[in-house]
Amino acid sequence: MPTYRIDLAYDGSGFRGWAANAGVRTVQGRVEEALAVVLRHPVETVVAGRTDAGVHAHGQVASFVTAEPLDPERLQRSLNRLLAPEVVARAVAEAPEGFDARRTARARTYRYCLDDGPVPDPTRRWTVWHCGFPVDEGAMNRAAAAFVGEHDFASLCRAVEGAATVRRVLAASWRREPGGLVVLEVRATAFCHQMVRSMVALCVEAGRGRLDPAAVPGILESRDRGAARGVAPPHGLTLWEVEYP
Amino acid sequence: MPTYRIDLAYDGSGFRGWAANAGVRTVQGRVEEALAVVLRHPVETVVAGRTDAGVHAHGQVASFVTAEPLDPERLQRSLNRLLAPEVVARAVAEAPEGFDARRTARARTYRYCLDDGPVPDPTRRWTVWHCGFPVDEGAMNRAAAAFVGEHDFASLCRAVEGAATVRRVLAASWRREPGGLVVLEVRATAFCHQMVRSMVALCVEAGRGRLDPAAVPGILESRDRGAARGVAPPHGLTLWEVEYP
Repeated sequence: MPTYRIDLAYDGSGFRGWAANAGVRTVQGRVEEALAVVLRHPVETVVAGRTDAGVHAHGQVASFVTAEPLDPERLQRSLNRLLAPEVVARAVAEAPEGFDARRTARARTYRYCLDDGPVPDPTRRWTVWHCGFPVDEGAMNRAAAAFVGEHDFASLCRAVEGAATVRRVLAASWRREPGGLVVLEVRATAFCHQMVRSMVALCVEAGRGRLDPAAVPGILESRDRGAARGVAPPHGLTLWEVEYP
Repeated sequence: MPTYRIDLAYDGSGFRGWAANAGVRTVQGRVEEALAVVLRHPVETVVAGRTDAGVHAHGQVASFVTAEPLDPERLQRSLNRLLAPEVVARAVAEAPEGFDARRTARARTYRYCLDDGPVPDPTRRWTVWHCGFPVDEGAMNRAAAAFVGEHDFASLCRAVEGAATVRRVLAASWRREPGGLVVLEVRATAFCHQMVRSMVALCVEAGRGRLDPAAVPGILESRDRGAARGVAPPHGLTLWEVEYP
């Protein structure tokens, strides 16, 4: 059966996250609704990153299997007619047999945008967290460095019954952009629930001088969610890229 | 009587423009409502640029006169508590006697953001016009060059009974940014209604090869709104800066 890959971008502001959920507006719900209209039969999608409510995507990847072969370019145009500009199919292509957007993915990259200036930028209010105090990106980078490698991230994940919390983080660093925004880019083979937003909250505490970055390894080792510093708001977070073999 | 100047930024998406208008949500309405709460008496504001519905501001300037002196920093904090992040007071200061945000202004600068890529960016859907076809910024710049100088812009303005349409444009040019966006920056002593959006529509016609840039001076000379090419959508437009002596 042919498998198709859809590369998606979306503004998560108006959605209760990716995952379809009866009675609420979700990205998966909208995408599968549109696919059903275009294909004239329902399909189930699989996704690389199950983003939370308010979280955006630049390079999300979904896949689905269908009995009937289809024209990828035409499907892309039809989806964009129905969904853009809130949800955009950046590309549609036939995928190799056995491709599964979630299981085949080798790495995910998220970005988090923080504005530590005195007042927020109204036109970025849905994509940037205006924290309201200045941060030192040097301290934030020292905190972030402790995430790199294979660790049990139990202290930085919302517990899911029976789910493992060991993850391999490949890179994590903050940079201050020319406009003044402070941006985290973090790449891992996979993430657990609320992991990036918990990392951001911890780094921001270090960045404002309330936490010694040297304490971060101990917080990881404690495997105690109470040792973390909560979660940063969702709207600063974007699933940036997913890598496949 | 002391005069105060408020530097404002706002996301115009949720407003029917600047100007207060009974029964509709406007920026002026929200700002004067907030001022009345903080000052405990109503004030009337004057503004440098009466932006249309959906148009944003980065550096809008408003002023008002009041009998009672006030603490500008405290007023800024109070306004931001009530209005941010949709509308933000970037600064509040006492202004020289006789200052009037509209009459004292010497020049206004607007920016218009255009995305000519194949698909829109969902997170920029409220601030960038995704036109859906590629444009040549060289041709757009040749068209824009014809706007510079003192001209009667009757063909590029929505007629307002009894209002003059002669304006002095100080600079007008498009640049392609590293991310691919094409941005117009246009500076004039003043603008008439829908002038920038009419300029953008004309430039875009030149940029897609449907209009010879050499025809632009003739379109201006015709003083005929029918010779123009309509107006570009409001959401790509931002009042960027206002200059005072």
